[in-house]
Amino acid sequence: MMKTVFSRAQPILVENVRETLQDLGFPESIKVADLGCSSGQNTFFAMSGIVNTILASYQETSRNAPEIDCCLNDLPNNDFNMTFKWASSFDKDLKMDVKGRCFLSGVPGSFYSRLFPSKSLNFVHSACSIHWLSKVPEGLEDNKKNVYIRNPCPLSVSKSYLDQFQKDFSLFLKMRSEEVVSNGRMVLIFKGRNASDPLYRESCHYWSLLTDSLLDLVSEGIVKESDVDSFNLPFYDAGEEEVREVVQREGSFKINDIETHEHLVPYKYSEEDHDDETCRLKFGEMMASRKRSITEPMLVAHFGDAIIDRLFEKYAQNAARYYIVSRSCNKTTVNFVVSLTRK
Amino acid sequence: MMKTVFSRAQPILVENVRETLQDLGFPESIKVADLGCSSGQNTFFAMSGIVNTILASYQETSRNAPEIDCCLNDLPNNDFNMTFKWASSFDKDLKMDVKGRCFLSGVPGSFYSRLFPSKSLNFVHSACSIHWLSKVPEGLEDNKKNVYIRNPCPLSVSKSYLDQFQKDFSLFLKMRSEEVVSNGRMVLIFKGRNASDPLYRESCHYWSLLTDSLLDLVSEGIVKESDVDSFNLPFYDAGEEEVREVVQREGSFKINDIETHEHLVPYKYSEEDHDDETCRLKFGEMMASRKRSITEPMLVAHFGDAIIDRLFEKYAQNAARYYIVSRSCNKTTVNFVVSLTRK
Repeated sequence: MMKTVFSRAQPILVENVRETLQDLGFPESIKVADLGCSSGQNTFFAMSGIVNTILASYQETSRNAPEIDCCLNDLPNNDFNMTFKWASSFDKDLKMDVKGRCFLSGVPGSFYSRLFPSKSLNFVHSACSIHWLSKVPEGLEDNKKNVYIRNPCPLSVSKSYLDQFQKDFSLFLKMRSEEVVSNGRMVLIFKGRNASDPLYRESCHYWSLLTDSLLDLVSEGIVKESDVDSFNLPFYDAGEEEVREVVQREGSFKINDIETHEHLVPYKYSEEDHDDETCRLKFGEMMASRKRSITEPMLVAHFGDAIIDRLFEKYAQNAARYYIVSRSCNKTTVNFVVSLTRK
Repeated sequence: MMKTVFSRAQPILVENVRETLQDLGFPESIKVADLGCSSGQNTFFAMSGIVNTILASYQETSRNAPEIDCCLNDLPNNDFNMTFKWASSFDKDLKMDVKGRCFLSGVPGSFYSRLFPSKSLNFVHSACSIHWLSKVPEGLEDNKKNVYIRNPCPLSVSKSYLDQFQKDFSLFLKMRSEEVVSNGRMVLIFKGRNASDPLYRESCHYWSLLTDSLLDLVSEGIVKESDVDSFNLPFYDAGEEEVREVVQREGSFKINDIETHEHLVPYKYSEEDHDDETCRLKFGEMMASRKRSITEPMLVAHFGDAIIDRLFEKYAQNAARYYIVSRSCNKTTVNFVVSLTRK
């Protein structure tokens, strides 16, 4: 999934890196940050793309390669040890020998706070991270038996989520506006909402499936209903207009472009076998595994770890049930690829 | 031990930070690197001292606090996760609220290579690291039944070690000379050799004790003699003149000062009980535990992990045997505190 998202965003990333270099007059030293880098083998996917684009741009214009300072950011509990172990594969992915010219660092901290010195960054990338809010919004007391917005729901619930998103995304832009040089750029990739999708935030939404799975465990007596009532995800899938409005109101960045990438769900199955029972089950397990890897720490903190295996068995079953629905509407996952220039 | 070393070097560190700020005209942004930071609760000891000195210097001269970029470097296999977990205690140690003005990063890599962009560092600190060579020197075939230089030994052995130290320390200075701004400083603390110490590199030297302990295991049939013959430590305790010569020949840095700190061994025992049998054993165990924490990965890579517990039991016994000798000569550990200014 991450790789699919990256691959589709790659041309925009390349284009924006090239335009940044031109706007900045091909500086001798370039500092790049990847915010919410995570750990594992995809960590360096975007960064190596960025560095290779920089190297190619300088080469094409007969310039010496610049020094490139590559900063990988994530929360302090991210597995930076693992990230640094993958650093040797990063070097191998680079299309030129950059020994002594390409520098790597890990920056622990929330991107809703300052992470870098003033006017130090030339280019910022962030993928699959900004849809996570800084905290669970306040005022969700009426969002009972739900872990996220699920239509129909009280207006106060969706307003609480939108408020938090506006505060957080605005803060994110303000912090970056202090760190990014004038004419520096950001390419931000995050989950959004497609206003034209009739099934959005309805029963087949991936978080609705999590709610249903938790409620299944309530029926089984394994989870208390009040615990489900008090659990909400710190997540928001904004609409394009909501994104535009925050950027314009905050005022530090110009919007170059917002692309909407619709990712088909299920991703990997061929046309012929989509009604097959095995495929339905496989799809359910794949969805369960993805959502588990993202939400497990939050769920464990609230419900304890004893319920997790059972919960995601249920999730797999519930997701399998929506396999046909997902196919028929042909989209339930939307990513925005937002390109911004620091004014 | 680390804390003892730091505490005694602290006044020199403070003085050098203050002089650097004056020489650089109190810049608005300061980048500090700690090379070989290790992980654990001592990691931030030096860095918090440096940051507090910077903050105090700006306050005393009625300036606004600068932005401080704190870079912690160690080899990629260092436990950076642990380091970042201790970062909250770093914030607490600071004598001023530096939220949004003090930035932390981890930089994985060998300090015998480039780690930072050109002319980016204002101040560099390194403690207990530079006595480690980049690799085991070549030409140690004649250093049989020894893991380090032990007097008397073939001249070729001490020459191989000195050659490697000269190459490595010179390379270290060259790499830093590219990274440190003009008038920026380095304070380097590392193990050295006191030429006037008659017992140096003799039987009571901490590496001679390691050799003896390995040979004990050879007698017990647990370790092969040929494995001891082929094992040598990538370590060098230079003499002050050797240090001066490398700095002067490399040429990028001016020597402000080299202080020699002699640390009494044993460190923590009171006068009254130094002949007591329990104290001897305690001393042995303390020495064994310190040397184990430093050398275990190297020993495991060469001898396997099955021998380690037994080896350091032997080490504790051998160290205890030298307890009285250590007391009578009153010094077996020497640290140099070297202050250098980039020309």
